[in-house]
Formats: sequence, structure tokens, C-alpha cells
Amino acid sequence: MIVYGKNVAREILKTNKKVEKIYLIEGFNDKEIISLIEKQKIDIKNLSKKEFSRLDNYSHQGIILFVEDFSYSSIEEFYQDNAKIIILDHIEDPHNLGAIIRTCEAAGIDGIVIPKDRSVEVNSTVMKTSAGALENMMISQVVNINNAIEIMKEKGYWVVGSVMDSKDKYFEIKYNYPIALVIGSEGKGISKLTKEKCDYLITIPMKGKINSLNASVAAGIIIYEISKNI
Amino acid sequence: MIVYGKNVAREILKTNKKVEKIYLIEGFNDKEIISLIEKQKIDIKNLSKKEFSRLDNYSHQGIILFVEDFSYSSIEEFYQDNAKIIILDHIEDPHNLGAIIRTCEAAGIDGIVIPKDRSVEVNSTVMKTSAGALENMMISQVVNINNAIEIMKEKGYWVVGSVMDSKDKYFEIKYNYPIALVIGSEGKGISKLTKEKCDYLITIPMKGKINSLNASVAAGIIIYEISKNI
Repeated sequence: MIVYGKNVAREILKTNKKVEKIYLIEGFNDKEIISLIEKQKIDIKNLSKKEFSRLDNYSHQGIILFVEDFSYSSIEEFYQDNAKIIILDHIEDPHNLGAIIRTCEAAGIDGIVIPKDRSVEVNSTVMKTSAGALENMMISQVVNINNAIEIMKEKGYWVVGSVMDSKDKYFEIKYNYPIALVIGSEGKGISKLTKEKCDYLITIPMKGKINSLNASVAAGIIIYEISKNI
Repeated sequence: MIVYGKNVAREILKTNKKVEKIYLIEGFNDKEIISLIEKQKIDIKNLSKKEFSRLDNYSHQGIILFVEDFSYSSIEEFYQDNAKIIILDHIEDPHNLGAIIRTCEAAGIDGIVIPKDRSVEVNSTVMKTSAGALENMMISQVVNINNAIEIMKEKGYWVVGSVMDSKDKYFEIKYNYPIALVIGSEGKGISKLTKEKCDYLITIPMKGKINSLNASVAAGIIIYEISKNI
């Protein structure tokens, strides 16, 4: 995976994540970053301004890192006493995925499930937006989230779906047992079949005229309600 | 104010907001938008693809609107029985401001206060990110937010500041009286003087290692806790 820019470079260089090589622009002089690179003995290639200019669309700030791809977890690793799991039903925007990963990490969530197809993957934008949280969060990619939900139900999880039109508000149910929270995609919400598999459907009450929440904000509101039981 | 793109065009054309003129790319064929424009009898100028290409940095999707600037409210308009007001202490990112406006509109917040200096203003990015909510939200720009806080306290508001290090969690206090919630800037939080003026300081508990929430997600979590009393 290729990532661009000083902030994400700083975050990655502070972790144990393997960095294969780094391109720096001539005259690069961020002392903190240079000292972090030196500690890890990573291959550096210095490029001229002209060579870098081909990449100006990527807000690189003069630094490009080639890092090992994100390692997905097996869903089996999530299960533990009273675990809280988030299932993302086809989130498409990498900025939303990155922000949700940050929220899950801070809220103490045990794992995130995303589907393999028609969903954003953990790419460099997700890594950048997640601001370092990615390295501390387990994410599992599954072929079919409905199958994953069936297995979780057998294991004793309560599956809660966030929808626009339930009569039950998100803070009216209890989360003090193993929970899998399903969050739908930005435009379409949770798919019909997945909704039918949920034990409970809950809604964030809307009191305005437009009533549209950003997907990562909506996720954050419910995840933190669950987090009161972590 | 100049705004770009089909989504924001659709939202604006559905409101009563005054649109001075519209530039359309040759062959523009979004039927819904064209019908909305025709209803409002707005001046249209058709431009060639070549003329539009100068604006390719703005993701215009072939449509540019010249709309009247946002009308700020007077803070006096916010005050009412049991009002809930959000004070943003120097938020810098227009995407965060836009997302916070969406949240406030959906949560039933009565008004938002932003400072005149060193803060993002309501620009076209804010308008776009707020997804139409802007037109239903009162926002007041004040010279000095500390003075505004003093006046609110005299009027019987409880001023609650969101910080990183309070022993009181955001859900441990009651919000069933007139509330002004202060949210700090992305990097620095609430300024020292403003923090001293708050009646209560509250914290979102963090249970991970990185523990960094996106500013608009953090705002959303607390605003929706307050919204349980609206």
C-alpha cells in the first residue's frame, strides 16, 4: 500500500508496521520524521521536485511510504465475553470507514466486519483518515455478512440494526450482552435480507426538516451508546 | 457564494434561497435539476466543455450556482424556553463545520455560535457538506465568544465544555435545562479562558490506545446526548 503525507507518515513510523521503502523530496527537513526513519533503518530514495510533481494530486507533502498491506483478522478472533462487534453493510466512502475505525478504537469495540464485495476496502485513504487507529483495530472481511450474522446469533450475540424508521430509539434498548451492531451504507441503509436477520431495529430520532446525518457521525452516536456498557 | 455540483444544486433549488445565475455545461441533462431551474426562472448561461475545464478542480459535474451569501442570525434569536445552543470555539475544517450543522439540525438544536476570527466561515464547502441542513439552522457570528458566554450565563444557561481530561463523563450530567455546549477546535480543544468560564467540563471516555475521535463525530456524540432532552 502506498501512503502520502507527513501526518500519516509520522503515525505509521511510530508503530511496528513494516515500511518497505520511502521516497523523500529533495530538501525534506521534517526533523521528527527523519529521526523516526533513522531509528527504523528504512530504505530511502531521494527524488527531485520534478520527479515528485507527477504525484501532486496526492497531497504528498514531499514524503511517500510503501507499507505492507493491512492484515485482516479472522472473525473468530473477535469473540470473547460480552464482546461488541460492528458490522458495516457496504459502506462506500473511505473517509467514513476511516472515521468509524477511529470511533471503534476509542469506544473499545472488539472488531469490525466488512463484506468483500461492493464495499470500500482498507486502502491508503482509510489508513490516513483513521489517524493511526487502524493498527489497533481488528477488521475481518467476509464473503457474506448474512452468514456471519447467523453464526454470531448461534454464539449468543444480539444483532441490532440501525435503520431510519424503527419505533425503537437507539437508547431505549440495553446493550449489556454480546452485541453485533449493523450499520448500513451511506445511500441505501441496511439491505432488506440483512434487516430481516436483525433481532432489533433501532433509529436515531430526527427532529429537524432535512434530517440527514453524516454516516460516520450516525455510527459514532450509536457506537458510543453501546460503549457505555464496555 | 459560488457552489459546484449536482447534489448541492438540487438541495438549494428545492429551498427558497436566492440563486442569482447558473452556469451549465453544454449537453447538461439532469432532468430533475433542469425542471427545478425552470420553476424558479433563474438566469442560465450555457458554457462549452472547454470553458468549464478551467474549473475542473471544483468537482462541478457541469453545474455552477451563484447563490446569495449565508445570512447569519443574531444570537438573540436563539433564546427560548429550554434552548440548546452549540458554541464552536474555532473549528477550522469546513467539512467538520458542515457535518456539525447537519447533526445540530437533526438533533433539534436551536442555534450555533461561531467566532468571527480564526474560524471557518459558512463558505461553499460548508454549504455542500451540510447537505441542505444549513438553510434550516440559525448560526450567529460573534466577535468574542467569552462575552457571548457571559451573557448566556446571565440569562440562566448552563455552559458545558467538552474537554479531553475531565473526571465527569458526558452522560453523567443532566441536560434538562437551558444549555450552551462549547466544542473546541480540532487540534487545540477549548481555549484556556473559555474553559475557565464553563460551569461544567465533560469528557468522552476513551478506551483504546490512539483515542482520537474525528471532531464532527465527537460533537455528534455529545449533541445527541443533549438531544435526549429536546
